[in-house]
This record gives sequence, structure tokens and C-alpha cells, in this order.
Amino acid sequence: MTRTVYVNGEYLPETEATVSIFDRGFLMADGVYEVTSVLGGKLIDFAGHLKRLERSLNELDMQKPADFDNLLDIHRELVRVNGIDEGLIYLQVTRGSDGDRDFAFPSADTKPTVVLFTQNKPGLAHSEASKKGNKIISIEDIRWGRRDIKTVQLLYPSMGKMMAKAAGCDDAWMVEDGKVTEGTSNNAYIVKGGKIITRQLSNDILHGITRAAVLRFAKEAQMVVEERSFTIDEAKEADEAFTTSASAFVMPVVEIDGVQMGDGTPGPIAKRLREIYLDESLKTAI
Amino acid sequence: MTRTVYVNGEYLPETEATVSIFDRGFLMADGVYEVTSVLGGKLIDFAGHLKRLERSLNELDMQKPADFDNLLDIHRELVRVNGIDEGLIYLQVTRGSDGDRDFAFPSADTKPTVVLFTQNKPGLAHSEASKKGNKIISIEDIRWGRRDIKTVQLLYPSMGKMMAKAAGCDDAWMVEDGKVTEGTSNNAYIVKGGKIITRQLSNDILHGITRAAVLRFAKEAQMVVEERSFTIDEAKEADEAFTTSASAFVMPVVEIDGVQMGDGTPGPIAKRLREIYLDESLKTAI
Repeated sequence: MTRTVYVNGEYLPETEATVSIFDRGFLMADGVYEVTSVLGGKLIDFAGHLKRLERSLNELDMQKPADFDNLLDIHRELVRVNGIDEGLIYLQVTRGSDGDRDFAFPSADTKPTVVLFTQNKPGLAHSEASKKGNKIISIEDIRWGRRDIKTVQLLYPSMGKMMAKAAGCDDAWMVEDGKVTEGTSNNAYIVKGGKIITRQLSNDILHGITRAAVLRFAKEAQMVVEERSFTIDEAKEADEAFTTSASAFVMPVVEIDGVQMGDGTPGPIAKRLREIYLDESLKTAI
Repeated sequence: MTRTVYVNGEYLPETEATVSIFDRGFLMADGVYEVTSVLGGKLIDFAGHLKRLERSLNELDMQKPADFDNLLDIHRELVRVNGIDEGLIYLQVTRGSDGDRDFAFPSADTKPTVVLFTQNKPGLAHSEASKKGNKIISIEDIRWGRRDIKTVQLLYPSMGKMMAKAAGCDDAWMVEDGKVTEGTSNNAYIVKGGKIITRQLSNDILHGITRAAVLRFAKEAQMVVEERSFTIDEAKEADEAFTTSASAFVMPVVEIDGVQMGDGTPGPIAKRLREIYLDESLKTAI
């Protein structure tokens, strides 16, 4: 089935969905994005994603697109026409184009480009991957300094996924100045002595929407949360490890740089947090 | 006049030139580029740009596009149909698209996207800017760690140009660990006691095609060249400063962070190097 996607006010067959070669998203990576999960045909944490999108736009002095207040409707329409029960919706906003290439931003009345499309992922909530857990490698973090802004500058995370693949693993955690920053497309956690440890928010990591929700649910369940950075060696010696992201929720990690975590199966706290997250998020899905 | 541009084998009016929303250049900044100058209707340093393009593709495990061996012909055809006497040709190659979004690279037989367009710049060789010189500010360098690969991850350089503009200046030099790396879209130089000082090649800076040519011409003219990093304070105390790039050749710098260089006009060595570069490059233009 051909997907219906959204580009600048129009619903189009995916095969006809294009942007100008002069779009600043294409020429200069001058764009930001969000990915929202769909479970049971409803949007998970939509308000959080919309709020972070607004923050990303603000940080980059980008105009809010005229569509901004209609984004919920657009998301829902795409879910409906594409018949998505479980899956993802990708949203990208770029600074648009004034028809040529220049480093300087175009005039403030230049229309942003807005693109949305769905990805159908049946079985997302109870994926095989989540039952097996991920094997990860560590790589150096050489990304730019504003990882709190969700830009499309995703070349290095892509390279990281390929490095993991080449090593027979699923994903990579990035390490800077000896400390883990985050995964290629997720926040990173370890569990030691019942305590959940994850890096504190700063410009060094993405301010994960799923991270915020999971930490809130963990605290509500009386779990101890410590927000601080940790080394890859500390991670290898932890009882458990996991990641969080909008598209994989809570994903257990069962191996780090060839070192097995616990008995090599998903840990109890990661499994419990995944259940809580799915249960609680479904209650507020819209 | 509507420009004719080149997209994946076709010559098209610029208004009809598009790429898929699933192009990895648009979604993940997974692309590289080159900019070649045109003077007297001929290409400056074309072989150098082609060689660097090949290196960028190799470093990112990107396929060489089928068009690779025809790129000279495509450049020349665009110069011809658009009647360019002085100007630029922009070339971008991305990893293309397999019709969806994934961090992992698509299969090796995925066709790269190839886009080229011209920019008409009458008077480029003897621009007013080059006679006045540039005022620059210094900003922190927060780009990713592989600046030797000419990727389209140009958001921070764009932000740097806007910071310069906001400060009433023309451009910005970036500083990392106390040392100048380079300009937002050019290599940076100072002159002290007749000696030309510019940062040594590494992953920290772009391996400028114009840089290589200018240093070669400088040595042929018996000038002393020292390749090492320098601080912004050392730059402010220098006799002269300038930048090199394919699109602005040798551009004098007359002010750094509000400190006037010499008498505030382009220095003699920058002016001489610009003349030599233009003379010598025209001899080998094709």
C-alpha cells in the first residue's frame, strides 16, 4: 500500500512527496524533527513532543510553521488514512527555502517546510527485540555541542548504528570525556543496587520525552533515581542497563562491549519500567 | 532568468528541481558537497574539488554516483546553459533513499542523489568585499569532530554567520581549546613578521582546496609558511589576517573582535596572495 504523507499543507502519495533542492533541510541540515509513537491508533506523549518541537524551533530562531496549531489533527489524519494501529509518526520542520543557497538565514517571512509521514510497526509494544534485549558497543561521541536541540544532523548517529552492526551488535552508546552521553537515538541508563542512574540534562544529551516520563513513573513507583553521568566501565559492572526512546519505549541492554549484563537476559527493573511506561502512556494517549 | 539545474541525470528548471522527502540528505544530513568557482566561464581547481569529493565519499562509505566520471561535463554544461562568466557551481551527493527512514545505511545498491546548480556572481574576482576586507568575530567551535569531511551539516556555520551579522560583522572564526580552527566557510590565516601562519591539517578543519593552492603559490613566491594553530589573541596582535575559500579566494580580514588589524585596510600579503591565486588559477582553469 502506498502511504499518504503530508508536505506543506498537502496530503500526497509518498512517491510524489518531494521538497525543493534549495530547501535548507537538504542543503544545510537546517531542520528539526520529532517522532511520536502510535499504540492502539492513539498518539503517545504527543503534548511532550509538540513542546520539545517548539523549544527546538526557538533555540534555532526558526519560525513556527503556520501548521503548528494543526499538528495534532495532521497526526491523527495520517494515522487514520494509513490505518496505523502500532507504529510511528515522523515530523520534520526546516527553515524552508528562498530559492537559493546561502549560509545566512533567509528573511523571516520565508515559509518553513513541514513534512510528516507514518511508519507502520505492528507488534511495536511487544517487540521481539524488547524480549531479547540489545547488545551495544561504546563509541566516541564526536557530535556537535547542542544535542539538546533535535536537529536532523544525524550522520554520526547513523555511522554509530553501522559500527554496531559491523560488530554484530544492535546499537552504540557514545562516550565523551570518559562518560557515557547517550545512545545513537535513545537515552542511556544503568541500574546498580536497585538505583536507576542516568545522565543529568544539559546541552550534551537529548531531553528525551520518554526519559522524562519513565523517570516520573519510576519515582511514583518508589524507585530511586540518580541523575549523574557514568563511565562505560561502571556500566559494564552494573546489574542492569537499558535505554529509552519514543520509538522503542524502554529497551533492555544485555551486553556492553562484549560484557554480558547479569545473566544476559533483560533485567527486572527494565522489564518493570517498560510495563509501567506502556500502561501509563496508553492511559493518556490521544 | 530561470536557472537550469541538474538532478539525478536530468537538466531541469530550478523551480521543478526536487528530491524525495525520504532522501537521506534531507532526513539525516547524510550528504557531502563541493563548491567550484567559475572565472571567465572556466572552472577553477576542478581536479582538486573532484578529488576531495571522492575522499568525502570514501570516508563515509558512500557509493560513487554513476555520474562521477561525467561531473566535468555536467559542470561545463551548466556553465554554458546558464551563461555563467563569473560565479559558482554547487554540487551535492547524498546517500539517496530506499523510500523510508532508518538510521542504518540503505543497501549498497541504493542510488546516490546528485544535485548541481550554478550561482551567477558577476564581479566575483574583483569584489567590493575583497577591497574592503572582512570584519570578523570569534565564536566557540561546537561542530562535530570530522570537519575534514565536507558534509552538509552546516547548521552551526550558518548560526555563526548570523552571530557575525548580529554583531555588525561579516563572518566568524571558530575557537576550540583556545585555538582558532577555521572560519565558518573558509580557512583562517594570520601574518606576523612576514610569516604566514595557518592551522595544520587534521580532522579539526576542512582541507581547503584553495588553502593548498595558496600555500603552494606562497612558497613558490619565497614566502615563509608555518602550519600550526594560533590563539585569537595572537591573531589580534598579528600584522595581517585573511581567509581562503573556493568562493572568495583570498579574503583580507581587517578587524577581529573589534580590534583593527594594521591600518584597517587589507594587508599587503593578503592582497598579493589574492593576485597570485587569481593569476595562477586562471592559467589552469578548465
